[in-house]
Amino acid sequence: MTPSSATKGTRRRQLSVDDLVGRARDGDARAVARLISLVEDASPSLREVSAKLAPHTGNAQIVGVTGSPGVGKSTSTSAMVTALRKTGKRVGILAVDPSSPFSGGALLGDRVRMQDHATDREVYIRSMATRGHLGGLSWATPQALRVLDAAGCDIVLIETVGVGQSEVEVAGLADTTLVLLAPGMGDGIQAAKAGILEIGDIYVVNKADRDGADQVARDLRAMLSLAERLEGGWRPPIVKTVAQNGDGLDKLVEAIDDHRDWMNEHGELAVRRRRRARDEIEAIAVTALRERFGDIHGDARLDGLADAVVAGESDPYTAADEVLAAL
Amino acid sequence: MTPSSATKGTRRRQLSVDDLVGRARDGDARAVARLISLVEDASPSLREVSAKLAPHTGNAQIVGVTGSPGVGKSTSTSAMVTALRKTGKRVGILAVDPSSPFSGGALLGDRVRMQDHATDREVYIRSMATRGHLGGLSWATPQALRVLDAAGCDIVLIETVGVGQSEVEVAGLADTTLVLLAPGMGDGIQAAKAGILEIGDIYVVNKADRDGADQVARDLRAMLSLAERLEGGWRPPIVKTVAQNGDGLDKLVEAIDDHRDWMNEHGELAVRRRRRARDEIEAIAVTALRERFGDIHGDARLDGLADAVVAGESDPYTAADEVLAAL
Repeated sequence: MTPSSATKGTRRRQLSVDDLVGRARDGDARAVARLISLVEDASPSLREVSAKLAPHTGNAQIVGVTGSPGVGKSTSTSAMVTALRKTGKRVGILAVDPSSPFSGGALLGDRVRMQDHATDREVYIRSMATRGHLGGLSWATPQALRVLDAAGCDIVLIETVGVGQSEVEVAGLADTTLVLLAPGMGDGIQAAKAGILEIGDIYVVNKADRDGADQVARDLRAMLSLAERLEGGWRPPIVKTVAQNGDGLDKLVEAIDDHRDWMNEHGELAVRRRRRARDEIEAIAVTALRERFGDIHGDARLDGLADAVVAGESDPYTAADEVLAAL
Repeated sequence: MTPSSATKGTRRRQLSVDDLVGRARDGDARAVARLISLVEDASPSLREVSAKLAPHTGNAQIVGVTGSPGVGKSTSTSAMVTALRKTGKRVGILAVDPSSPFSGGALLGDRVRMQDHATDREVYIRSMATRGHLGGLSWATPQALRVLDAAGCDIVLIETVGVGQSEVEVAGLADTTLVLLAPGMGDGIQAAKAGILEIGDIYVVNKADRDGADQVARDLRAMLSLAERLEGGWRPPIVKTVAQNGDGLDKLVEAIDDHRDWMNEHGELAVRRRRRARDEIEAIAVTALRERFGDIHGDARLDGLADAVVAGESDPYTAADEVLAAL
C-alpha cells in the first residue's frame, strides 16, 4: 500500500516521510520512534529522511554522558531528565550499546530506571544496539541524534551502555561532554588512562555522599589544573551529585546551560558542529566507496588476494594496490 | 646518509630494510624494534617493509589477551611468557594502549612486570600507543604483528592496556583469543555485556585462589553451555590460574597449543587468517581512498559542505554525494 492510497483509519500501514517529520515535530513519540527505526535499519528512505530533517536541525544541545561502568551513568541520566523537565525543556535520550556487535541485540542493563519518564510526552527515550564495524558506535547514531534534534528536543543526552568503551566517540558526537566519576572506583588512574581529562567539558563526581568523594574531586581538580588550556578557554567545572536522590542535579543542569552559553559566545559551538558534520560527511562518503568497492570485486577476487597474503606470496599493501587499480 | 654509503662502525645511522629483516630473523631485538618503528611511524619504507616481511610470515600463533581492567592482564601475560619460555618458544608481546588518542602517549601501567623478561633474547616486548581514528586500535597494529611473526616468534601475545575497550578488535587480530575474568569484579554481567562469550577461545579465571573464583567458573560454564555452538566446533575450555605465582599457567599454555592444533586440523586457522587478511587489505585500500579524497577536496571545500549541513541547508547524505561526484 502506498502512502497516498492509505485509507484513513485507526491503523495506517505507512506514513510518508513528510507526514512522519511533521508529526514528530508536533510531539508524536511514535513518529519519532518510526523515524529512528528508518534510520537505524538503513531503510531505502534513509536519504529522504535525512534531507527532510535537515531544515529542522541545529536547535538541540547534544550532551554526551560518559564514565566507567559503576559510576551511575543510567541513574544520572534519569536524574538529569527530571531536573531538565523542571525547566520545561523537551528532552531526548539516546542510550547506545556498542559492546555487543556479534549478537546484534542490546543488553540495556538498568534501563528500567528510565521508566520514571516513560509517560512524559516531552521525553523521548531510545535505545540502540550497535551495528558498528569492529565494536564502535553505529554509523546510525548521528542520524538518530538528528531525528531527536528535528523533533524539537532542546537537549539530547547520549549515553553509552556497557564496558566503558566509545567514550571518545561519544565526545565526538556531543556539543557538551560530561565525564562522570565516583569514589571507590580507582578512577584516578583510570581517568588518566582513558584520556578523559581531555574530553570532559563538565566533570561530575557522583555518589558524593560516599567516603572518598571529596578526594576524587580534589584529585580531579589537581589533574585538571595541570592540563594545558588555552587562554580564555572553557574551564571545566566539577559538580558533585547524588543522582540517586537528585542532589546537585540542578547545579549540573546549570553547568550544562553555562557551557552552551559559553560555546555560543565564543564561536565554539559552530567549530564543534562543523567538525562533526565534516566527520559525518566523510564517513558516509567512505562507506559509499566501500560499498562500490565491494560491488566491483565480489568475494572471490578479494579472497584470492587474502590467500596470497596469508601464504606470504603478497603483502597487504601490494594487495590493496591491486584492489585500487581495478577500481 | 644513504644505507649504501653508511660506514661500517660502531654506530650505524641507517640499515637497509633487507638488512633489518635479515637481522630481525637472526634474533636481533634492535632490528625488530626498528622495523616496528618504521611501521608505526608510517615511514616511507612501510610498503617495502611489508613486502620484505611477507615471505617470512605465517608461523606465529597470534594470541589475544582480553579482559576487564583489574583481572590481571599484565601479570597473566608476564606469567604466560615465563611458561612459554620453559617450552623453548620465542615469544613476542605487543601491548597496545588504545585509550588515549589525544595525548599520543602510551600510559603503560604496570609494564614494569615485564622487566622480568627484558634480558631474555628470545622475548620481544613492544608497547604501542594508538594512532587509531576515534579510539580504536591503530592501523599499525597488524603490521607490528607481522614484524614479530617474521622475526621468528612462535607465539605473539597481544594485550590491550587501558579501559577494557577494543577487546573485540583484538579478537579480530588473533588466531586464539583468551578472555580473562577474576572473582569480585562483577564479571558475570560485564561478561554478557561485552559480548565476550562470543569472542573467547579459551577462558581464564585468574586469581583462582580468591573467594568466588569457583563461582565465576561455574557461572561461566553455565553461560557457555547456553551459547550456540556448531556440531564438532571448538569447545572453549576454562582454565584457572593464579598469575601472581604461576599456578595453572602450564595448563593455559597447553590449552593454547590445543587450540592451535584444533584449528590446524579443522581448517579454522586458514579461515581466520583469510578473514584477517581481507580486513587488512580492505582497510588499507579504504585508507588510500580516503587520502585521495582529502587531496582532491582540500579543507575548504569540505568545510563549505559541513557548514551547509550545520545550517540545515543540506544533509550529510546529499553532501557526501557531492563529495563523491567530484571524486
